[in-house]
Amino acid sequence: MARPAGDRRMRILVSNANMTQAITEACAESARRAAAPGTEIIAATPRFGAAVISSRVENIIAGHALLETIAPFAGQVDAVVLAVSHDTALEAARQLMPCPVVGMTEAACFTACMIGGRFGLVTFGNAETYRELIARHGLSSRLAGTAVIDVTAPQAVSEPEMVAEKLLPEIAALAAAGADSVILAGAALAGFDERLRGRAVVPLLDGIACAVRFAEGLCRAGYPKPSVGSYAPVKGRTLSGVDPGLAGLLGG
Amino acid sequence: MARPAGDRRMRILVSNANMTQAITEACAESARRAAAPGTEIIAATPRFGAAVISSRVENIIAGHALLETIAPFAGQVDAVVLAVSHDTALEAARQLMPCPVVGMTEAACFTACMIGGRFGLVTFGNAETYRELIARHGLSSRLAGTAVIDVTAPQAVSEPEMVAEKLLPEIAALAAAGADSVILAGAALAGFDERLRGRAVVPLLDGIACAVRFAEGLCRAGYPKPSVGSYAPVKGRTLSGVDPGLAGLLGG
Amino acid sequence: MARPAGDRRMRILVSNANMTQAITEACAESARRAAAPGTEIIAATPRFGAAVISSRVENIIAGHALLETIAPFAGQVDAVVLAVSHDTALEAARQLMPCPVVGMTEAACFTACMIGGRFGLVTFGNAETYRELIARHGLSSRLAGTAVIDVTAPQAVSEPEMVAEKLLPEIAALAAAGADSVILAGAALAGFDERLRGRAVVPLLDGIACAVRFAEGLCRAGYPKPSVGSYAPVKGRTLSGVDPGLAGLLGG
Amino acid sequence: MARPAGDRRMRILVSNANMTQAITEACAESARRAAAPGTEIIAATPRFGAAVISSRVENIIAGHALLETIAPFAGQVDAVVLAVSHDTALEAARQLMPCPVVGMTEAACFTACMIGGRFGLVTFGNAETYRELIARHGLSSRLAGTAVIDVTAPQAVSEPEMVAEKLLPEIAALAAAGADSVILAGAALAGFDERLRGRAVVPLLDGIACAVRFAEGLCRAGYPKPSVGSYAPVKGRTLSGVDPGLAGLLGG
Amino acid sequence: MARPAGDRRMRILVSNANMTQAITEACAESARRAAAPGTEIIAATPRFGAAVISSRVENIIAGHALLETIAPFAGQVDAVVLAVSHDTALEAARQLMPCPVVGMTEAACFTACMIGGRFGLVTFGNAETYRELIARHGLSSRLAGTAVIDVTAPQAVSEPEMVAEKLLPEIAALAAAGADSVILAGAALAGFDERLRGRAVVPLLDGIACAVRFAEGLCRAGYPKPSVGSYAPVKGRTLSGVDPGLAGLLGG
Amino acid sequence: MARPAGDRRMRILVSNANMTQAITEACAESARRAAAPGTEIIAATPRFGAAVISSRVENIIAGHALLETIAPFAGQVDAVVLAVSHDTALEAARQLMPCPVVGMTEAACFTACMIGGRFGLVTFGNAETYRELIARHGLSSRLAGTAVIDVTAPQAVSEPEMVAEKLLPEIAALAAAGADSVILAGAALAGFDERLRGRAVVPLLDGIACAVRFAEGLCRAGYPKPSVGSYAPVKGRTLSGVDPGLAGLLGG
Repeated sequence: MARPAGDRRMRILVSNANMTQAITEACAESARRAAAPGTEIIAATPRFGAAVISSRVENIIAGHALLETIAPFAGQVDAVVLAVSHDTALEAARQLMPCPVVGMTEAACFTACMIGGRFGLVTFGNAETYRELIARHGLSSRLAGTAVIDVTAPQAVSEPEMVAEKLLPEIAALAAAGADSVILAGAALAGFDERLRGRAVVPLLDGIACAVRFAEGLCRAGYPKPSVGSYAPVKGRTLSGVDPGLAGLLGG
Repeated sequence: MARPAGDRRMRILVSNANMTQAITEACAESARRAAAPGTEIIAATPRFGAAVISSRVENIIAGHALLETIAPFAGQVDAVVLAVSHDTALEAARQLMPCPVVGMTEAACFTACMIGGRFGLVTFGNAETYRELIARHGLSSRLAGTAVIDVTAPQAVSEPEMVAEKLLPEIAALAAAGADSVILAGAALAGFDERLRGRAVVPLLDGIACAVRFAEGLCRAGYPKPSVGSYAPVKGRTLSGVDPGLAGLLGG
Repeated sequence: MARPAGDRRMRILVSNANMTQAITEACAESARRAAAPGTEIIAATPRFGAAVISSRVENIIAGHALLETIAPFAGQVDAVVLAVSHDTALEAARQLMPCPVVGMTEAACFTACMIGGRFGLVTFGNAETYRELIARHGLSSRLAGTAVIDVTAPQAVSEPEMVAEKLLPEIAALAAAGADSVILAGAALAGFDERLRGRAVVPLLDGIACAVRFAEGLCRAGYPKPSVGSYAPVKGRTLSGVDPGLAGLLGG
Repeated sequence: MARPAGDRRMRILVSNANMTQAITEACAESARRAAAPGTEIIAATPRFGAAVISSRVENIIAGHALLETIAPFAGQVDAVVLAVSHDTALEAARQLMPCPVVGMTEAACFTACMIGGRFGLVTFGNAETYRELIARHGLSSRLAGTAVIDVTAPQAVSEPEMVAEKLLPEIAALAAAGADSVILAGAALAGFDERLRGRAVVPLLDGIACAVRFAEGLCRAGYPKPSVGSYAPVKGRTLSGVDPGLAGLLGG
Repeated sequence: MARPAGDRRMRILVSNANMTQAITEACAESARRAAAPGTEIIAATPRFGAAVISSRVENIIAGHALLETIAPFAGQVDAVVLAVSHDTALEAARQLMPCPVVGMTEAACFTACMIGGRFGLVTFGNAETYRELIARHGLSSRLAGTAVIDVTAPQAVSEPEMVAEKLLPEIAALAAAGADSVILAGAALAGFDERLRGRAVVPLLDGIACAVRFAEGLCRAGYPKPSVGSYAPVKGRTLSGVDPGLAGLLGG
Repeated sequence: MARPAGDRRMRILVSNANMTQAITEACAESARRAAAPGTEIIAATPRFGAAVISSRVENIIAGHALLETIAPFAGQVDAVVLAVSHDTALEAARQLMPCPVVGMTEAACFTACMIGGRFGLVTFGNAETYRELIARHGLSSRLAGTAVIDVTAPQAVSEPEMVAEKLLPEIAALAAAGADSVILAGAALAGFDERLRGRAVVPLLDGIACAVRFAEGLCRAGYPKPSVGSYAPVKGRTLSGVDPGLAGLLGG
């Protein structure tokens, strides 16, 4: 399942689970900035689903779409980074692929844990599903708090300074509540870590960058997959009505 | 979105997330046995996915399939019971539908909590994802332990007494570890609660039956949906490449 | 211990642990509204204790009173609902009786868990013992927050609209903190779920109604009692100075 | 509410919640051995309840009995030690009395926490309610495990060496599981801490002795009671059908 | 290792981990006030480190200094109280010494747990490390909240009434959040428990006093040390570059 | 504080907290194997302490020694890896240094979390302090279990195949208990991840390798330090009796 040993260049797939090509490209750009020299970033966008996931329903659909999107890359890439802040279908993708798979929020959380004690998270819209996600990762005790800013994704592009001004007091409040770093969650906040550098009282974390670095490390480590348990490779399964690329990977 | 008030009979959809029609029918039968007189049980099976979910990957695909399966019933049924022991896509289905949605393992857990202090869970294959599911429901502190019996689903049908003999010592061991009831998880164990009645030291719980009773109660209660937060109805969304029934429900 | 099979009508005892007959009657009325057709609700009030439990001390006394109150109904009713928001002596009542026993706050919590992710709780006086109660049920991680309104029980009757105006902002604040539903705890808040229907941003839960529906479901299920463990029936015990009805039930 | 300042001798009430006078006396003896010179131990036995609490039901009855038993001593003693291993009605007793109240298992747990990291607990019968008790005290993460020995309380008196031989391997197993000390829970194990001294691999804790020492310390500290919250003194309450001594204390 | 049996007077070492002699003396004074008649308090100050620990770095250095400071007293004292609010090196000191060792914040927490349900903590500077400390003791679920007052240690001495005025609203806020008592953390707050007596709504706890009382009780109990596990005595170890007193104790 | 921008080669300090030079060198070798091309690994060994930390006491001493050891490298290296499986003084080192600091067991845990769901840990001697360490990192819910093998560190060198035969069944048992990977904790197990590759049922993790990869990623990220909170840089402090290099870093 591994790629030919002669191929020295590391190739990481950055897969969106939203259908917006522009977000995919922005994430790929973030990934390239974070990647080590010699790492090739390729990107993929799902064939179906929501333009931008904004509900539990869309997130479930996106899980399937994401698996379908990454399946054809099995054996073609050295690692996969999930470019969706909900870490959509992360555990399943990890079981599916022969290579490491890293979620962007998961990666931001573990990075935060190596910077300080507790961390905060800021997002648009609703923070509750992020709170659940952090619990799913077992890290509730390291979450100092969450905050929501009341702006729209388009505003993040058109009025970045206004958004920055809304972010800064939330970041300061999370720091006062015990956060030693703050995760910027959601594609629309991409780039604000750089924009606010020097103005925020604690480090700001962009999940894509965190994930790419971890993916590179896991690739280099070359861990085998577990051969038992709930992450062992799936084999000999027959699926119906599912994309042949995905179905084929489970039937091998 | 509610059904016409004049329609007095309660109608509950039992939706499988596996593609095996026989399991759907067996679950519908369990549901009919548990239902109150006057409750109509209708059943549905997904259009795509695995015959029987046996991996994290298949479970994610099944989540999408389940949402697609139940969406056309919005406004046509009074409640939905998820006939899949992983409570696949439960939270999303709850957000999607205008009526109550109950997961079978969730329902078994809450029932167990009203019978005694802690509960156990027995299944085929691998218990780890059930452990995670119970944590997702916030009930880890009420789980006394899990057990796995080493038989196959076909054996549960062809050699039920052999399976019963394997179940009984596991049930006793879980009781000794503090379980006041034991959940039989997985469609293949359907009916063993009845088969072992009088032989098991603690009550055995079948999730479908538990879920149908809770669904009936929630229907009668007629709670409104939350109008804010992450379970508020989804509206005005445009999805691509998704079944029109499902997409339409989100676009309304 | 079971009631004669020919008796088709379900009979549920709603037992107060406060001595105020008017509260018992109000709870019985709530129970009747929530019950399925064909369910008979009977009610009981303790022989000793406080008019309304408002301290830890009174709650302990009420536990004994409650057990004494329900004991004579063993074998005469199909289920017991505890009409006291502290779920007073719930676990002991469950062990004592041959039939299902459901607590009103426990039932509200589990109902809340089937409506959304986290829930809130509003009460009069002091919320700390409710926080402890939810922890005792193992559900702390699903509690978004508690709120206290500064009114008296008599005001809830005499000035309900004033109380409603105090409740609404607390409910909204709990929803903003992540609650997808809110439990109204304490007998004095009975009926406010109906009064605020359509005005509250999330569903409001009345424990009596929740408990009656669960009790009906458990009755229909007909689970045996555990024969081992800390909920197994108590037999052959000799108590002194205790009401003969209660003592007799333990001595059988 | 305090005793006259001129009375220099500290007086501690050791109150049983079981009706067996012999256990009360044994506990009082343990208390006297543990007490500082100059501490007077007086003992009390409830007027009603079970000879020895062995179920959840009896424990609830005992809670009321205990409050009735200690109420007359308000203002007459400097502290109360609850001589019942379930810490029955501890929080209510603490609210009720003007002086410190200490539970024997609570005291053993806190002592264990000052001896090492985690602790174990050995008892007769069923350990589940002790597990719940330790969770109620918030100490689950410091519990390494529980063990049950299969002997009867009379055997502890008539065949102590046989019981000792059963205890030692359980103590060693708990130590191997991470316990740095072991609590002997239940009146029938009183004295085994001394009997096994030098033979057990870790310290053994007798709750009565632990509680007496803490009670002495709290007396000397002379903390005021909280004037707000759920432990503030209860006043102006009218109870019916309750022992006048207890009722009077709440009505003051 | 034990002191000669003939020596009836209890001798407790109060060891600072800060280098400020005045703090040591103040702590020794607090200890003497709290100690039983007949208890001798001796005090020690480290040879190296910070005047007052105010960072994670200084706290680690202080851990070593503390062990070096107390080692020479092994066999010379009956117990050790750590007069440093971070419970610096507590577990190691406990393993090192042949006698009981009690931390001041640990002792305040356990005392708080015997006064009410949850407790609060007020300090200068930053509360995050106290939050971590309480988690390390396994007591997070009993912490109602923390508060920080914005004054300096010198002000606590020079303007105590100003500091008192800042403390009182924080104490009231913690009580409103569920605290039944409040720990005053940090040497600079020593004495404010007495100063605010009668003005604070809940009891205030001074760790030194709590620790001395617990240490006296543990001395009287005379528990053996665990002979296995991670608190068993250290023997036969060779350390380099370490104070001979400390090294010798590990080499014995 | 940063190194001159022109210096393109990444330099990582691998600092032991044990005094055994051979372990330092073995760790440095592991680090070099794991490092990316172009990363320079330099190593340091403390000036005082134990040859190999094997008690809580030695670990505290080692904390001070470690800080003294790394302080002179502030500004001279791009990151620090703590080559001590107890993550000794990790948080303090993180606060002290201007560059990223990564603990080897912390790194192994986070790596395990990106490989599967839960993980196990195998060590020599006593696993209790590792259990505490994982709790300190907030990851208890992801720990499937710990195991101890009964061999000595010298045997790991002289009889590696015997040790391997002891490790394999423990690894399989941890996998059966739900571990998707297993951390080999303790310097003496270095290299066994490679030795057992292909024989263990789940991936084995060597903390040094994990830590080096994370350290490289954090260096590349170039996060600023938090300017507030308990990880903000320490300045203007005066320490006495402490190594000038360490004291100077705090006084700057």
